[in-house]
Amino acid sequence: MPDEASLGVTILGSGGALYAHGRHPSGQLLQIRQHQFLIDCSEGVQFRMADLGISPFPIQQIFITHLHGDHYFGLVSLLSSMILQGRKKPLSIFSPPGLEPIIRMQLEIAGKETGFPLQFVELLTESASYCIFENDDLSVWTLPLQHRIPVSGYLFREKAGQRKMIKEKIEEYGLSIEQIKAVKRGEAVFVKGRKIPAESLSTAPNPPRSFAYCSDTAYLPELAKILRGVDLLYHESTFVQADAAKAKRSMHATAAEAATVARDAHAGKLLLGHFSGKYNDLGPLLEEARAVFPNTFLVEEGKTYFP
Amino acid sequence: MPDEASLGVTILGSGGALYAHGRHPSGQLLQIRQHQFLIDCSEGVQFRMADLGISPFPIQQIFITHLHGDHYFGLVSLLSSMILQGRKKPLSIFSPPGLEPIIRMQLEIAGKETGFPLQFVELLTESASYCIFENDDLSVWTLPLQHRIPVSGYLFREKAGQRKMIKEKIEEYGLSIEQIKAVKRGEAVFVKGRKIPAESLSTAPNPPRSFAYCSDTAYLPELAKILRGVDLLYHESTFVQADAAKAKRSMHATAAEAATVARDAHAGKLLLGHFSGKYNDLGPLLEEARAVFPNTFLVEEGKTYFP
Repeated sequence: MPDEASLGVTILGSGGALYAHGRHPSGQLLQIRQHQFLIDCSEGVQFRMADLGISPFPIQQIFITHLHGDHYFGLVSLLSSMILQGRKKPLSIFSPPGLEPIIRMQLEIAGKETGFPLQFVELLTESASYCIFENDDLSVWTLPLQHRIPVSGYLFREKAGQRKMIKEKIEEYGLSIEQIKAVKRGEAVFVKGRKIPAESLSTAPNPPRSFAYCSDTAYLPELAKILRGVDLLYHESTFVQADAAKAKRSMHATAAEAATVARDAHAGKLLLGHFSGKYNDLGPLLEEARAVFPNTFLVEEGKTYFP
Repeated sequence: MPDEASLGVTILGSGGALYAHGRHPSGQLLQIRQHQFLIDCSEGVQFRMADLGISPFPIQQIFITHLHGDHYFGLVSLLSSMILQGRKKPLSIFSPPGLEPIIRMQLEIAGKETGFPLQFVELLTESASYCIFENDDLSVWTLPLQHRIPVSGYLFREKAGQRKMIKEKIEEYGLSIEQIKAVKRGEAVFVKGRKIPAESLSTAPNPPRSFAYCSDTAYLPELAKILRGVDLLYHESTFVQADAAKAKRSMHATAAEAATVARDAHAGKLLLGHFSGKYNDLGPLLEEARAVFPNTFLVEEGKTYFP
């Protein structure tokens, strides 16, 4: 990631349910500081990760939005590969109910035993947004979406980071490791009996970033409230506005609807994806979205996006 | 297919369980005359078919050898795509027991209803070779293999074809459609009261071809008997001879063992595949096999092989 970035998302699939125009189904690798998360895991995600030189080993949490195959059919094979490669690190998989028996059944019939702790966390259905995961650096929240089967989006909120040391000051004041840690936390330190405030020794931390993943979902105006101020928003945009009726029927969103959510949420940047296979040229989706929310981009597979 | 060929197999995956060196897990499209069959269907097979311009629609029989993921994890997504694309044609899936509940569970949780007749045929386990499918042009037989879980290979036997008309003779004798059909079947016809033997009006049919698919399996010398005279033999060759102990332990075969089966079966041509991801250079496998059976080839993805 670039020096300034503490959050970046790599696109492992940009298309909808059907593979078309070289666009594969959904999958994203999210990096926040030193943590890596997989969000959705369609067929072939492990191949596309390998082609990008991304190892699955650091991933300890996988977030599946819903149990339509284009969002999870690559999961069981990713797990099988992890087993073959001798993974030991624990892994947690978050999803709407029903995933665990599907996965366990397939591992069992293959005679595979996971040599690592594998935990399935079932999301509460029909719930308001709630926190499902937290560590020192971030928290993850569900996002209530609406689709033909139970679905949840995910909101990743980075926590305030540490102050950044001014290197010259370390030498100037002869600071110890303990003192540096204290300054990074924002605490004053005593040097030769004199109290030096953290502000004199360090600069402000990067602002904490947030990322939201909203797929698949019908257009939900009320999402804007939960997403208020999100830095980077991925929102599905399966259709153009001319196909709005089809979007409504299939409980998908148009590009303009995604942009309306971004605008109303005062998002920083909007990423569009989950494009219908019926469109080769995606120009009209971008045009329609930018008319509503200018800072919009069409995701491309293999690329990493920052807030 | 070339004019002379009535049978050809297109490789959709040449690797073993782990994706490596651009080699995907197992899958093959077999064409015999106008029929297309899918043999094994690993993750991403439908993408690789699409990239090669192969439509899944003509396929009405799929043959799965065993329920290790690298041989069937792409099946449920292929079926899901068929459903989305409005398939109506019936489909039969042959496999060792246990596949149907895995597939049905995943389609059900996605709320997918197959709009076409979908039949699962469970193979008898621990059986001698028996015929599981037959039509006017060919028959398909199981092959008893040995692996860590129940597994079956498949032997495809083309039936004797029709005689080929000599075009000039049709005009010369003014043959009717019915007479042409009779000649193709090898029957004599009467023209102006004169009996004309089929041999005078047509040339001999192409010899019927056969293809055997043996993966995954430990080295089984007794296979040669069942495979006697097979025109085109695909036999797994996961390892080189130096790794024979590993092959034995994991119930896989080496390239030289595959070649020994081909030699003892008096096969026409041997195709090697299911290469371990540990080898980048496959030269040694080919060398070891050709020392035993010269007419050996390493399969390459996207290529079609003929007897």
